[in-house]
Amino acid sequence: MTSPEQACPFCQRLFSKTIIHENDLTVSFLPNLRLVRGHALVIPKRHVEPPELLTPEESVAIMQEIERLRLLMLEHFGPGVDVWQKSRPQLPQGHNGTKVDHIHFHVLPSDPDSEIYEKGIIWTFDHFSPTTEQEAGEVIPYLQDAPKG
Amino acid sequence: MTSPEQACPFCQRLFSKTIIHENDLTVSFLPNLRLVRGHALVIPKRHVEPPELLTPEESVAIMQEIERLRLLMLEHFGPGVDVWQKSRPQLPQGHNGTKVDHIHFHVLPSDPDSEIYEKGIIWTFDHFSPTTEQEAGEVIPYLQDAPKG
Repeated sequence: MTSPEQACPFCQRLFSKTIIHENDLTVSFLPNLRLVRGHALVIPKRHVEPPELLTPEESVAIMQEIERLRLLMLEHFGPGVDVWQKSRPQLPQGHNGTKVDHIHFHVLPSDPDSEIYEKGIIWTFDHFSPTTEQEAGEVIPYLQDAPKG
Repeated sequence: MTSPEQACPFCQRLFSKTIIHENDLTVSFLPNLRLVRGHALVIPKRHVEPPELLTPEESVAIMQEIERLRLLMLEHFGPGVDVWQKSRPQLPQGHNGTKVDHIHFHVLPSDPDSEIYEKGIIWTFDHFSPTTEQEAGEVIPYLQDAPKG
């Protein structure tokens, strides 16, 4: 019987050659696949999935490491930085060759003069729509509940 | 003389009609422009910019509100959720009609069966490259420094 930790590439430390920084609660490293030079991941050391199982101490440690990386990226890699965290509970680990079921935060340099930024921002703006009063009225009640379970 | 708070649409509570949830440290609300139904923002109540000025208490409160929204979005709006935080210190407030200099976290439902997800994932995969050992060797030292200033 394989435990979640045994099946987890992060717990198995497959990133061991690209570690940036490590302390008791978090590790940051370069992923196998990156979107731009400097793209890093920050994870809790403990196998945390789903994300709501993060402790307050882990949350603070992760935010501090993200901020440390953000400042260094602004200094060395470009004028902007993006942070992403994607939750896809319906997809199996390994999907698309990238999905890992251990919460991770992407921290990426972002340069508005680059092709990748330009394409991303056009894509984003193409999909923006005004939030109407009617939509707000329909959506907000769903987000005010207590989550189930 | 206008203070940062007076010039800040979030501190001026221009979102007052679309508030989702509010406590001593954070507010969540629907933005004027959204990418998908349910797209929400989470901010610290205090005018925090740049992001490294967040206190540990604010970081924990923000993470907890993100998790609360994430679980409700999974329940009501779709099988996945994205969290984004973008840092563009070089662009002025109001740039592109959307930039606000008060740290905010986007929390968005994400549906792999939707056109918007499909276009985004194709865009992402088009831009992925392997992280080579040489690149890792060049990048990691920059991210191990202490940030300046």
